[in-house]
Amino acid sequence: MTPIRTAILGFGKIAADQHVPAITANPRFDLVASSSRSGQGVGQTFTDWRKLIREVDGLEAVAITTPPGPRYEIARECVLAGLHCLLEKPPTATLTEIADLACLAEAQRVSLFATWHAQHHRTVDAAARALAGKRIARLDIRWHEDVDKWHPGQDWIWQPGGFGVFDPGINAFSILTRIFPGSLFVRSAELHVPHGAQTPIAADIAFSSPQADGPLRCSLDWRRTEGEEWTIAVDTSDGTRVRLENGGARLAIDGQASNDEGPGEYPDIYRTFLDLIDARDSSIDVAPLRLVADCLLLGTRREADPIKR
Amino acid sequence: MTPIRTAILGFGKIAADQHVPAITANPRFDLVASSSRSGQGVGQTFTDWRKLIREVDGLEAVAITTPPGPRYEIARECVLAGLHCLLEKPPTATLTEIADLACLAEAQRVSLFATWHAQHHRTVDAAARALAGKRIARLDIRWHEDVDKWHPGQDWIWQPGGFGVFDPGINAFSILTRIFPGSLFVRSAELHVPHGAQTPIAADIAFSSPQADGPLRCSLDWRRTEGEEWTIAVDTSDGTRVRLENGGARLAIDGQASNDEGPGEYPDIYRTFLDLIDARDSSIDVAPLRLVADCLLLGTRREADPIKR
Repeated sequence: MTPIRTAILGFGKIAADQHVPAITANPRFDLVASSSRSGQGVGQTFTDWRKLIREVDGLEAVAITTPPGPRYEIARECVLAGLHCLLEKPPTATLTEIADLACLAEAQRVSLFATWHAQHHRTVDAAARALAGKRIARLDIRWHEDVDKWHPGQDWIWQPGGFGVFDPGINAFSILTRIFPGSLFVRSAELHVPHGAQTPIAADIAFSSPQADGPLRCSLDWRRTEGEEWTIAVDTSDGTRVRLENGGARLAIDGQASNDEGPGEYPDIYRTFLDLIDARDSSIDVAPLRLVADCLLLGTRREADPIKR
Repeated sequence: MTPIRTAILGFGKIAADQHVPAITANPRFDLVASSSRSGQGVGQTFTDWRKLIREVDGLEAVAITTPPGPRYEIARECVLAGLHCLLEKPPTATLTEIADLACLAEAQRVSLFATWHAQHHRTVDAAARALAGKRIARLDIRWHEDVDKWHPGQDWIWQPGGFGVFDPGINAFSILTRIFPGSLFVRSAELHVPHGAQTPIAADIAFSSPQADGPLRCSLDWRRTEGEEWTIAVDTSDGTRVRLENGGARLAIDGQASNDEGPGEYPDIYRTFLDLIDARDSSIDVAPLRLVADCLLLGTRREADPIKR
């Protein structure tokens, strides 16, 4: 079987760190080209993604790893060119854009895959199985990290559409919507927005659910400089305690700990992409992005200290 | 054919002004009960909607005309009780809630109807036909009204989830998504939020579309005290000028004016509800609410003068 000729559009840190190793390790893919404004990349390199999709012979699939802002426009052209598309998270800047791409991909019979890397831990599957069919007594999410460590000097995160602390927080939402055994709604959201910024540096969210008997809370905070944690703790009403740590890579059920022993997030993403391409199917989970939008629809804004520059 | 025994949940001004006359004028409906916290209403009156849906014999359908905040919880119970549900606009406070209700209604085989009253002018249908298949050269929306006239002393509009100027503005969006001949995305949104309020008093929105050749602009403003207007003007690239005025009730195509000569917004809503019930079908258009969420996802906030109390 001839490998699927694949390109990366928007070659940057996440492409180099995660996509390139995952693609090159999979014999079903052939990584033939990439584009980035700087011109750096792998395979045949382009500074113009339009030129790439026009000129690379036999191209079949693309991974779009730009920031979310321009992703709709790129993905639209790729879908119309008959290319299977993998989108980094969050798939687009707005909900209307991803809904439109879903329709276009179906009409064009290409595979569209809105990826959520944090869902691709085997431990997340195991947590979902442990919670299936249960009622929930308590949910406590803490997604606390040091923004200066992970986004040093980056200004786009504070701009309109930059997501702020929802940029990491949407990873927690993507795990939560995968493991929660029922419907889950934002009931309130306190958004702590630094003076002069457009996006929150922290958010305190309360959820509600017909399947819950107790409080469902989520704290996202980019101001934690020591003891960072990415933890989702769920107690069921019949006494099971499920705790995902390290962003989902470690699971404890009633104190019994295990680590993710799957292929890893990005290798599993590309395995899934192959399944979708083989079936001419798509996977477009909008639930995590929709929860962010719901936080903004219901949010209360509080002014926080200005960003230190 | 026995009329459909129907109740209004959340009897208030919009129920009295619009729903009661539309339901009682339609012989296929029998308006038998209502609930409101104050106990005022028509037919058998209740202060507790749960008691109403338990106790009214042979109830088949409900119109839920509360504010959007509690609507999900009420609609969920009604759908689970096997009742056909009509929802005032916007259908729910969040996008996840309406998505969940859509699934529940399908599972329960009841009709769910998320209404957008402004779409029910015959002039809106005529505008959509005039624009179908065209490219768009220019869009200019002005939805300008006096908040003190329409919402005197109301504080909920400024609270989280109160929508602010998007409360009337979503009517414009509901017409726009019906008549625009293609995909339409929020590109930027300036939100003017009064000091101390949580929701905008005005919004300047730029849209984009693959079907447009020129600017797509929308101005929502609650600060207009004289010369209020609710106007959507669209020029096509081949020179047709379509202009909806008075919230959609008046249409001019290339200067040729006509007024809505249909049954009126709410009578047409109930006619549609009957069609849905007869077909055991649902109509759940989330596009207008999704555009509001997209405005918030991409929005830039500016501080405006405090609300005068």
